[in-house]
Amino acid sequence: MKTIRVAIAGIGKIARDQHIPTIAANDRFEFVAAVTGHQAPEGIPGFRSVPQMMEAMPDIDAIAICTPPRGRQTLIADSFAHGLDVMIEKPPAATIAEAASFLPMAQAAGRVLHATWHSREAAGVHPAKQWLKERTIRRVECNWKEDVRVWHPGQEWIWEPGIGVFDPGINALSVLTKILPEPMQLRSSALRFPANKAAPIAADLEYDHAGIPVSVAFDFDQKGPQTWDIDIETDDGSLKLSMGASKLAINGEDVDVGEEPEYAHLYRRFAELIDSRTSDVDLTPFRHVADAFLLGKRTVVGAFEE
Amino acid sequence: MKTIRVAIAGIGKIARDQHIPTIAANDRFEFVAAVTGHQAPEGIPGFRSVPQMMEAMPDIDAIAICTPPRGRQTLIADSFAHGLDVMIEKPPAATIAEAASFLPMAQAAGRVLHATWHSREAAGVHPAKQWLKERTIRRVECNWKEDVRVWHPGQEWIWEPGIGVFDPGINALSVLTKILPEPMQLRSSALRFPANKAAPIAADLEYDHAGIPVSVAFDFDQKGPQTWDIDIETDDGSLKLSMGASKLAINGEDVDVGEEPEYAHLYRRFAELIDSRTSDVDLTPFRHVADAFLLGKRTVVGAFEE
Repeated sequence: MKTIRVAIAGIGKIARDQHIPTIAANDRFEFVAAVTGHQAPEGIPGFRSVPQMMEAMPDIDAIAICTPPRGRQTLIADSFAHGLDVMIEKPPAATIAEAASFLPMAQAAGRVLHATWHSREAAGVHPAKQWLKERTIRRVECNWKEDVRVWHPGQEWIWEPGIGVFDPGINALSVLTKILPEPMQLRSSALRFPANKAAPIAADLEYDHAGIPVSVAFDFDQKGPQTWDIDIETDDGSLKLSMGASKLAINGEDVDVGEEPEYAHLYRRFAELIDSRTSDVDLTPFRHVADAFLLGKRTVVGAFEE
Repeated sequence: MKTIRVAIAGIGKIARDQHIPTIAANDRFEFVAAVTGHQAPEGIPGFRSVPQMMEAMPDIDAIAICTPPRGRQTLIADSFAHGLDVMIEKPPAATIAEAASFLPMAQAAGRVLHATWHSREAAGVHPAKQWLKERTIRRVECNWKEDVRVWHPGQEWIWEPGIGVFDPGINALSVLTKILPEPMQLRSSALRFPANKAAPIAADLEYDHAGIPVSVAFDFDQKGPQTWDIDIETDDGSLKLSMGASKLAINGEDVDVGEEPEYAHLYRRFAELIDSRTSDVDLTPFRHVADAFLLGKRTVVGAFEE
């Protein structure tokens, strides 16, 4: 198979921690260029825009968009206009209207769009979905609680409107909407905003899932143990996904789900989509974030200090 | 053509002011039953639920959903399950996820869904769209300012999360997204919340429309002249829609656009959709409302007193 020459736009934490090493470990891909306003990684040519990059290196095949969600529209439009297949990091865009515009753009250009949800590739997700299929769910509880100071040090974009605790929270929503057999519908939303920030630091969300309750709690100010857990009770036992769905336990017993990292799955899938000329775009998790803001009752809490 | 026997769910202000008289004036429809928790209109049998109604009157063909957006999902699911074609008042639902579920439900049941935006049927909308098609737009300004005390006296549902000034505001968004040739993308949103309410009383929204600015101001606390205006400057003259797009002026001169009321159009269209077994569902205006909440920077203003 032909090697896919891939560029990365946005050389921040997620690109350096995940995309670059994953591409290096995958034979199908070669990391050949960066679009960045800052420094490109060593040995990689850097460009200020997609058109500049494509003028200098017209044989690039694909691009992974790892910039913050604001301002992606031009990047993505330019990428399709220059014949690139596109993978985008979550969340897909700053707004629902923008996110909804990307797939029609891909279709009009005859290109592939892969809107990724990396947490859906965690090792426990697929076995959890299979196990739940054969059971009747009684109750779902999700606790996604981390200390933003540890996981996003100095990242100012995270406090832009529409983000905050929904940056990790959308990962939980991406897993829940993947493993649960029916659609979830939001019934109530309580959001806590730091006095000095435009985005929430915590959220309590109550959903209905075909008549059973789904309780979701996000906290970005967690000082004790960090938890990324989903607990599900069924008519035939209980299931626990933990560590961001990389670990699975059934009735309190650990299940061996392997250890393949999320991004290895993601890039394998991106290659499949490119080979089969198919897009994969599911905006459900992002719609749930918008709904949480739409129905959100706000309270203001103390100022956030890093 | 066969008469369409139509029920109405939710006998509130919009049903009494618009739906009932419009159905009475249209030969294709007959108003035969009501689903309501209160009193049915005189001479019309009233029921507490769609299943109860269909058990008593199995030959009903269609239903118009005029209840507030919260709690419509069961009504709509029941209507499709009992073989009814469905028209829904704006806004379609309480959440984006719920609204997105209705068309798949209609398709699975083989029924027609008409998600209406009555302001799009205002007499000035179609001629404005045609006039704009041949011109280059330079600037768009929308001012939708009314006194909620006058137009929604005592309607508590209007202050539920996600509604407030977006109840009239979504009408403006439905017109803008109909007449403008390109998609609008929200760039900033400022929302003003009364200290005692869970929904905004005013909003200032800035959009990008293919590189030109669209400024939108909603106010629900307008004491002076009430305005429902859209002003558009082009390379070849200016256009003004006023009175909720029922009046059109070009370069300051009034244009005769006729006076057919919005709901007469709506029911004519519903009959066409039923005859051709076609659904008409455009969620764009509602997506823009969710985006305004998602990106919204909030300020708290004085308590609202009716």
